[in-house]
Amino acid sequence: MFRRIDVIGSGRVGTAVSGRLRERGVDLESGDPELVLLCVPDHAIAEVASALPVGPWVAHVSGATPLAALAPHERRFGVHPLQTFTRSRGPEQLDGAWAAVTAESDDAHAAGAWLAETLGLRPFRLDESARTLYHAGAVFVSNYLVTLHRAATLLFESAGIPPASLEPLMLRTIENAFELTGPISRGDWSTIDAHRVAIREARPELERLYDVLADATLEIAT
Amino acid sequence: MFRRIDVIGSGRVGTAVSGRLRERGVDLESGDPELVLLCVPDHAIAEVASALPVGPWVAHVSGATPLAALAPHERRFGVHPLQTFTRSRGPEQLDGAWAAVTAESDDAHAAGAWLAETLGLRPFRLDESARTLYHAGAVFVSNYLVTLHRAATLLFESAGIPPASLEPLMLRTIENAFELTGPISRGDWSTIDAHRVAIREARPELERLYDVLADATLEIAT
Repeated sequence: MFRRIDVIGSGRVGTAVSGRLRERGVDLESGDPELVLLCVPDHAIAEVASALPVGPWVAHVSGATPLAALAPHERRFGVHPLQTFTRSRGPEQLDGAWAAVTAESDDAHAAGAWLAETLGLRPFRLDESARTLYHAGAVFVSNYLVTLHRAATLLFESAGIPPASLEPLMLRTIENAFELTGPISRGDWSTIDAHRVAIREARPELERLYDVLADATLEIAT
Repeated sequence: MFRRIDVIGSGRVGTAVSGRLRERGVDLESGDPELVLLCVPDHAIAEVASALPVGPWVAHVSGATPLAALAPHERRFGVHPLQTFTRSRGPEQLDGAWAAVTAESDDAHAAGAWLAETLGLRPFRLDESARTLYHAGAVFVSNYLVTLHRAATLLFESAGIPPASLEPLMLRTIENAFELTGPISRGDWSTIDAHRVAIREARPELERLYDVLADATLEIAT
């Protein structure tokens, strides 16, 4: 669909995206792009977009930013790879991930789906009105998963145990389709109370987090 | 070390453990065991242990239960596989997981490490005094990971998005060594505030959970 694309930005996502488009034979240095793809920080999107000549398609890869930030361009869409990226890896980071495509017309949807698939992503439609809920969901399973791991690491360090032992448990919890096991699934509240007391003594900064998660687990995961 | 082991209990863990010991050529039906391994619910351990004749080694596979529950037996230890188990799989569930070995003597430690390794587990020593902290850490990364996934699924359902898209993101977050990305890592509090407002409208039962996790992420994961 697009043979000439300008990618603006060379951060974590921009580098992976440029590398993948190059692998696919897209011309990234034409000077005459059919699509300008903004891989710049969220706060810079509106300013960069407003400085671009009107004509080519313009898109961004932000999960949090509305399409209105791409004004004055009307041929526009968003493709947000639902993935976390690191600088030390390449375009293969895109493989297997999904992507939220936001658009305001069928043409724009088709363009967004084409870009997602060309990048190796599995596209789904995201309504602009649902963007913030979507992005909050992504924060729950990615950023807050880091937080759970960090909390457990602090407890394991206090207990003198290698935190590397946590990883197989996390992976299997996912592999087992998030089946809840452990004390809350068994209604064993005396064990939960004992955890609370031990955390209060060793790592009081984690007590509230433990409590709120126990309540939420009972409410939404049992 | 032990050629004859009686395994009591055929729940999730007991079934996997028996299957693995059978694969290793251990005699599980001798009637004359060198070790009796209790794979019964935590609340039943003390009663079952007290009914066993004194003589053979006695052990349990509980993360939460102190060794004192194995009284009156003195040749005793605990081996807790740090893993979640499902009924639909077999002994291969033990592969790659770690195990907490709790014991009160060098002989008992050696016996526990032997059992862990025979089961295919990687043993580490757990002090009895650190047992509750250890178990709480396991709850954080296994049970509460289920809760995060459930919260995100509720938000994705509200947003009309396939929750299957969450899994590659969770797996890569682990694979990338829990490197924190996303709005909190960038200090982007306006995005976090927008999430809070959207959650309050669509899924108010998740607002407190989101807030406490945001605070904890800032405190321990950045």
